[in-house]
Amino acid sequence: MSVVLPPNVSEKDFQKALAAFAGVVGRQWVLATDEDRDSYMDIYAPGDADQHIPSAAVGPSSAEEIQAIVRIANEYKVPLWPISRGKNLGYGAAAPRMTGTVVLDLGRMKRIIDVNERFGYCLIEPGVGFFDLFDYLQQNKIRLWMSIPANAWGSVVGNALERGYGYTPYGDNTSHICGMEVVLANGEMVRTGTGAMSNSPCWQLFKYGYGPSWDQLFCQSNFGVVTKMGLWLMPEPEATLGLDMQLPNPDDVGWAIDALQPLRLNGVLLQNPSIGNSLRFVASATQRSQWYQGEGALPDDVLAEILKKSGFGWWNISLRLYGYDEVNQVHARIVKDAFAPHTKQEFKVSEWHRGDSIENSGAGVPSVNPLQIINWRGGRGGHIGFSPTLPAKGDLVLKQFHSTKKRYEEIGVDYYGSFTLFDRYTTNVNMMIYDRDDAALTRKVRDLFKVLVADAAKEGYSEYRTHISYMDDVARTFDFNDHALLRLNERLKDALDPNGILAPGKQGIWPKAYRASQA
Amino acid sequence: MSVVLPPNVSEKDFQKALAAFAGVVGRQWVLATDEDRDSYMDIYAPGDADQHIPSAAVGPSSAEEIQAIVRIANEYKVPLWPISRGKNLGYGAAAPRMTGTVVLDLGRMKRIIDVNERFGYCLIEPGVGFFDLFDYLQQNKIRLWMSIPANAWGSVVGNALERGYGYTPYGDNTSHICGMEVVLANGEMVRTGTGAMSNSPCWQLFKYGYGPSWDQLFCQSNFGVVTKMGLWLMPEPEATLGLDMQLPNPDDVGWAIDALQPLRLNGVLLQNPSIGNSLRFVASATQRSQWYQGEGALPDDVLAEILKKSGFGWWNISLRLYGYDEVNQVHARIVKDAFAPHTKQEFKVSEWHRGDSIENSGAGVPSVNPLQIINWRGGRGGHIGFSPTLPAKGDLVLKQFHSTKKRYEEIGVDYYGSFTLFDRYTTNVNMMIYDRDDAALTRKVRDLFKVLVADAAKEGYSEYRTHISYMDDVARTFDFNDHALLRLNERLKDALDPNGILAPGKQGIWPKAYRASQA
Repeated sequence: MSVVLPPNVSEKDFQKALAAFAGVVGRQWVLATDEDRDSYMDIYAPGDADQHIPSAAVGPSSAEEIQAIVRIANEYKVPLWPISRGKNLGYGAAAPRMTGTVVLDLGRMKRIIDVNERFGYCLIEPGVGFFDLFDYLQQNKIRLWMSIPANAWGSVVGNALERGYGYTPYGDNTSHICGMEVVLANGEMVRTGTGAMSNSPCWQLFKYGYGPSWDQLFCQSNFGVVTKMGLWLMPEPEATLGLDMQLPNPDDVGWAIDALQPLRLNGVLLQNPSIGNSLRFVASATQRSQWYQGEGALPDDVLAEILKKSGFGWWNISLRLYGYDEVNQVHARIVKDAFAPHTKQEFKVSEWHRGDSIENSGAGVPSVNPLQIINWRGGRGGHIGFSPTLPAKGDLVLKQFHSTKKRYEEIGVDYYGSFTLFDRYTTNVNMMIYDRDDAALTRKVRDLFKVLVADAAKEGYSEYRTHISYMDDVARTFDFNDHALLRLNERLKDALDPNGILAPGKQGIWPKAYRASQA
Repeated sequence: MSVVLPPNVSEKDFQKALAAFAGVVGRQWVLATDEDRDSYMDIYAPGDADQHIPSAAVGPSSAEEIQAIVRIANEYKVPLWPISRGKNLGYGAAAPRMTGTVVLDLGRMKRIIDVNERFGYCLIEPGVGFFDLFDYLQQNKIRLWMSIPANAWGSVVGNALERGYGYTPYGDNTSHICGMEVVLANGEMVRTGTGAMSNSPCWQLFKYGYGPSWDQLFCQSNFGVVTKMGLWLMPEPEATLGLDMQLPNPDDVGWAIDALQPLRLNGVLLQNPSIGNSLRFVASATQRSQWYQGEGALPDDVLAEILKKSGFGWWNISLRLYGYDEVNQVHARIVKDAFAPHTKQEFKVSEWHRGDSIENSGAGVPSVNPLQIINWRGGRGGHIGFSPTLPAKGDLVLKQFHSTKKRYEEIGVDYYGSFTLFDRYTTNVNMMIYDRDDAALTRKVRDLFKVLVADAAKEGYSEYRTHISYMDDVARTFDFNDHALLRLNERLKDALDPNGILAPGKQGIWPKAYRASQA
């Protein structure tokens, strides 16, 4: 059995730390064999998994155990990488940013502490998965809907902390966080918002409490370990109305964004519709070799053939209206009117009414089906997502789309992109699917990612989240006043975590101990 | 001319600091005479204005001047109290928490830097008042609506930073902040969100940027001086529909909250309706002596007479629907159906359509009329607001209302309260109107405030904002884990502001230099 150590920690001290961890959680929850470590590595890593090897993992069952672990970690200067369920697929999964970091696996903390139907919220621990919460709501006939990302293996808390998205009117999950319990790097426990008042009945009702509000400081950061989170859930509406359309041309995404953005801003569209190219759907149902055996990215004529046979459009729009049935009908007409000047196509309309099956309702219903895409190229599939945000404006969307597609074609990867429309901005998630057994392709994907970061930065765009391998690259593009915001984050990091225990390097924030050597 | 000094600063050093400030802003913008100081005191202070005497004021015209002032303040250990326009009436106005603090008056920074109609936002400086921005939008025929508090003398930026409220669907102003420019206590400038990327076009479009998000850390805090703020504005709707009703009985507020909360949560009601008792309206149009000459709080029979003659109800509900006309009609029916089981009264309906005058549209239209209430008792009027938040639940609302009203009656102040309904919570703003020339009454009001803070804390309720005189009292009620959140705030304060320059004592956060002596 090999040993992986954190930087600047002796094997003797490391073993002492593991023994002390075992004293807290029990020996069976300290995992440090080769197999254990493998299970926490990023199986989709773009050829650089050796940069992100955990030294061990420890699995607490409570916030109190986390407090004890953090205190031990400080004593031995052992860094910890908190994960909720480790399913941050495409962004590093369970693997730590820095080799040698101990994974702090919160997967055992699966309590659904409170669900309140009247006020539309839950209070949950980080190990609660989307399936867990969904089952709980269904079994208890609670008429609250979740907002769920395409792949639902992950943690509800982890997704909101990483600013992941679902597709209902509550799709911007992080904005629906209301109140947290957090263990700080010194082992202290805080509760945010009105939770800072020990008897408050408003912890999950009112975000801000009194004074500065910390919830968003614990998102995409390494300032604390979130042990409980309040999250708002949406009341089941009377009805939903789906409007689907396939757009035949690559440039149709431009006018579609321009037609939809005003309706997103004025509240006709309450959810964030995703406009995805066909590969998104084709790759989850078929393999590339069924369509094409040649070199390079899929040629246009092959793609045309795929569209013809599959029935998908170049872009595929799926809108959903939520509310009272009569209101949805009015809003549907307004959406149709906005599209009429641009296309002779009609939307495919689908309706759901309270009492119908929740499948196809437009509620968040968990699924792992979209993950099938990784088999597109054959071999051991991998995927990584490049996810910039840009203004929700057609000409800018088209420019970004063409620029990215060209980059894909340069290295022979099939373009797989989607634009998800919010009120004022759009996210542009671009998947790169590769065969991890193809070393040359994997290296090309790895290099392409840096090119895409640089291309976007020239336009002033940044990713809203990124893979652990590129956290520093993206952080460096935030250059205002000589990276003033990063330096502010570092000052807070040093004040809260002088030993650099929590998640070194997350989002480019390095504690003092590693700043010179790693960043 | 008397001299007021900051704690632990010699008169010589203080004069040097003022001279250095003058070197930055010009002599005419350093104000240190008795008259100058008077103009920055809280004219509504509940008899303790001597606790909050500024030593001077300095008025920069730019963020760069603020950077220079902050650096000088560090050199001489002179504390600064940033104000936007100093109209935080009822909460301390322009006066600093700690006597001797220099007011940093940002009222000269009045630039409207950007207004974007398509994306619904503005980027403004702290000196921009509600009237200024309103006039700009009207004059430029920009179809964006503001969210404005009852008294509109203040700063748009200041109101959002202090978590003030307006009454449109964007009424929760602080939640509509998107991107800030901030001068830190060391004179460094940061931009938050995507503004941390120097060429980002998304600064006012996407809140979170990359990594931890700081906007809410600069609200109700003393961690930086906000020099620019992005704020979302609402697109003008096609129509609005007003529904007004007077409720005759004190306990009607309970069922009204229970009837309206589900409609607030499910999006029928997009704005936060205010349910206010009659004194709110009566006191802005008449004086108490017209109705009653006796001792103590207004007797019930006098109040009944007032209601009869004035036409107001015990409680007065004013709802407003915003959207497409057809949709508003559907939603109005749903609201009426929700009230039907509780009352035989009909709502008074009013409609506004695009093109009609903006007055009575339900848009934010600035006014200072509500401030007339301070003349209610005669003499030099004063008012102070006690503003807890509680769950939006009828039984809890009734309990809180009766408990507060009883306290008012005990000291002979007329009950003046309102409940403003949000999706999950309600704020309960209770005004105490007094005659500052009546020393005994003023003292009673001052003491009552502490009793109300303690009463609320027993229920787990806290104010969402408070007067400078009670910032420590309210902070102390946040007791989870021995005030862990306050201690976290103090750690950040010490890391960012080791000399304790910025707003000592704001929201109970004291820098190290004053923690022992002041808190």
